[in-house]
Amino acid sequence: MARPTPLSGFPEWLPDDRAVEQHLLDSLRRTFELHGFTGIETRAVEPLDQLLRKGETSKEVYVLRRLQADPESGEDGGDKQLGLHFDLTVPFARYVLENAGRLAFPFKRYQIQKVWRGERPQEGRFREFVQADIDVVGAGDLPYHYEVELPLVMAEALGALREIGVPQVRVLVNNRKVAEGFYRGLGLEDVEGVLRQVDKLDKIGPDAVSGLLQAECGATPEQAKACLELAGISGPDASVIDRVRALAASYGVGTELLETGLAELGALIGAAARRAPGIVVADLKIARGLDYYTGSVYETVLVGHEELGSICSGGRYDTLATDGKNTYPGVGLSIGVSRLVSRLLAAGLVRATRGTPSAVVVAVTSEETRDASDAVATALRARGIPVEVAPTAAKFGKQIKYADRRGIPFVWFPGGADDDGTPRADQVKDIRSGDQADADAASWEPPAQDWWPRVVPAGE
Amino acid sequence: MARPTPLSGFPEWLPDDRAVEQHLLDSLRRTFELHGFTGIETRAVEPLDQLLRKGETSKEVYVLRRLQADPESGEDGGDKQLGLHFDLTVPFARYVLENAGRLAFPFKRYQIQKVWRGERPQEGRFREFVQADIDVVGAGDLPYHYEVELPLVMAEALGALREIGVPQVRVLVNNRKVAEGFYRGLGLEDVEGVLRQVDKLDKIGPDAVSGLLQAECGATPEQAKACLELAGISGPDASVIDRVRALAASYGVGTELLETGLAELGALIGAAARRAPGIVVADLKIARGLDYYTGSVYETVLVGHEELGSICSGGRYDTLATDGKNTYPGVGLSIGVSRLVSRLLAAGLVRATRGTPSAVVVAVTSEETRDASDAVATALRARGIPVEVAPTAAKFGKQIKYADRRGIPFVWFPGGADDDGTPRADQVKDIRSGDQADADAASWEPPAQDWWPRVVPAGE
Repeated sequence: MARPTPLSGFPEWLPDDRAVEQHLLDSLRRTFELHGFTGIETRAVEPLDQLLRKGETSKEVYVLRRLQADPESGEDGGDKQLGLHFDLTVPFARYVLENAGRLAFPFKRYQIQKVWRGERPQEGRFREFVQADIDVVGAGDLPYHYEVELPLVMAEALGALREIGVPQVRVLVNNRKVAEGFYRGLGLEDVEGVLRQVDKLDKIGPDAVSGLLQAECGATPEQAKACLELAGISGPDASVIDRVRALAASYGVGTELLETGLAELGALIGAAARRAPGIVVADLKIARGLDYYTGSVYETVLVGHEELGSICSGGRYDTLATDGKNTYPGVGLSIGVSRLVSRLLAAGLVRATRGTPSAVVVAVTSEETRDASDAVATALRARGIPVEVAPTAAKFGKQIKYADRRGIPFVWFPGGADDDGTPRADQVKDIRSGDQADADAASWEPPAQDWWPRVVPAGE
Repeated sequence: MARPTPLSGFPEWLPDDRAVEQHLLDSLRRTFELHGFTGIETRAVEPLDQLLRKGETSKEVYVLRRLQADPESGEDGGDKQLGLHFDLTVPFARYVLENAGRLAFPFKRYQIQKVWRGERPQEGRFREFVQADIDVVGAGDLPYHYEVELPLVMAEALGALREIGVPQVRVLVNNRKVAEGFYRGLGLEDVEGVLRQVDKLDKIGPDAVSGLLQAECGATPEQAKACLELAGISGPDASVIDRVRALAASYGVGTELLETGLAELGALIGAAARRAPGIVVADLKIARGLDYYTGSVYETVLVGHEELGSICSGGRYDTLATDGKNTYPGVGLSIGVSRLVSRLLAAGLVRATRGTPSAVVVAVTSEETRDASDAVATALRARGIPVEVAPTAAKFGKQIKYADRRGIPFVWFPGGADDDGTPRADQVKDIRSGDQADADAASWEPPAQDWWPRVVPAGE
């Protein structure tokens, strides 16, 4: 077997970098749980027909086939065709429908799993990546205040990472009802088409979007101009609402849907300004490509890394989960964890203090006395200290190097006994300072900052 | 969309059951980290040719295809054919080779991930399931003592679950060198074939195995009888070694390989008896189907649930990871977490005290004062207490029911103010006892056992 090479689009981390990712995941989970979100996981596969309900993403799906299956003979006849999920929202909607009778609504869940997209890999785009989602779903209805709460939970979850060097986040919000009400008021009926074109604004610029609106969505130059003016409005406070209203008036637009949307958007901005000042900004160009959003939509950028695009997106959806009789409206956001970790590492913003859990290596004096070293390790572990025992009874210098290569701060030397059997005290050495002192495995503790690996800003 | 139905072989847990699984995973991770194992993850896919190196498992692989890929046009031409990994050992071996220059050896890692097998689902067999693996891999060589250490780490990891009601485990050990040395001494050359037949002993019984040894492996009735006699030897102490030696002598078998294997097996039994009395048992019928094992092999059963089969298996492998120039021998074990969780739940052995993280629901007096309830929740969360706010300002009875349905023990009532503006004290109610008392969000704490959901023996 020749030395294998990485697969493009399938990131893997070395131990130190995995420690960074694991810290992020632990931290996100803690925030989600503090807010009462229940953790679930769904299977990695869904029936292909369910994955293809959203036409736009069909090209990204990985389809599964059992290697030994023979489609001709119908061996897999009883099985539906399966594909890997490309997000966690579609599987969650299916989970809610499947288990509706056994869940308590509104149901708040978080879900941290890998997803797969068969895209051509490119900078910041992966074929396999981790998402961390929160959603709340109601049975029949879902109060509006969750559309305020969920982006704030995500802002708090991401904000908790600032202590390790993650930049501040800015949550950009919009409301589908505003856009749809405005477009319809202008006389544009292909709302989804317009949204799809406006969604390209950052990538291709206003002139190209204007051209597409006219070519693809039947807009007049005047209508295209109005759409771009709406998309140009943004700001952190209620004055945004007034500017949208003034723009609408100047084009003679006044729909009930627009007013509903503006009321909701205003409430979101107002509540966010009270509860998390300076984090949430209204940005009328936020469209989100997916057509299942029906109210608030969200994107989140790292301040100073805006070109990375959104690292946490989502919105309100009213009809994603319905079994014909009952509908389960929801609102949720999804963090692209792999993209975030990848950027943090590439930009050298964060680091783990070590890649291995051990705080201590217990040295081995000779293979005959390995049991004594194992006993020290057992005593330390019993008090929650992560420890390993040296691999061989090499010279102590080599055993210290074993610890040093792994960033393990302490080496423990069992004292053994004098020739007359008198026991000698064990000693522990801080290999960074060289300090060495007598120690008792029944009571010694490492300093708190050395106990477990930590993730810190890269400069520390 | 009609109500979806489960996919056979792809287990999913409701929130309460997921809490049990999550607790298991957290507990395993903690034990692994206390022993200095570094956490890594590998991608879900491997090139198909790598997955098929072990012929026996080829039938179980799921192959991926991009939905829009056109094999005729060669659109995927640059891509290798990919399959989902069916275990974590093969990907780990590849990871070690790929990153050998950037890892410190011996490299101890744990890995907890899903794996996929395209098998026909049946009782206790899943198509998607979670494995929790530990392995240690050396560069060039790996000391024998790791073959003692690793099963003891697993025994400790599983033993730590006894407090939640998981039955005691028994680790069954054998050594490939004993079996191979004995078979070769008998004159049987198809060692892998014999191992594969002996591996079926528990399923089909000794008569059938004897028949297969004669029909498939060219054994004489006498040779088959000797293989079955060896497989019949088991016991917790060194007397097992003597019995094997006596059996070998009675058939005139005496090979160097057998003696090496017996010395290793004896050392393992001896060390295990000192360090974890009563857990490890030598069992000469343990064969393990996979042909890459070269030394110790392990299986683990739940005492009282032996018919479930092994929940944690593995062994020593010398040549799994080699790039032609360098070889990386290893030893490891893998817990079948999904099978274990499934059995614990089906047998009613364990339960979560609640399925949602929240310890407290803060009631909402009216939608106008929701901000006051949010402020209470924020104050409690700031001290690490998991809290949610009621979904609507319904009658308090309904809000208490909201908590009760989720097993949340406390409901918090914001005091608000009298008509003259005098603030009233908040109150918190233990909805199990009905006790209600004044409380201050800046200092109140739930009892420790109510703070987070716990996983306990089902009877508690």
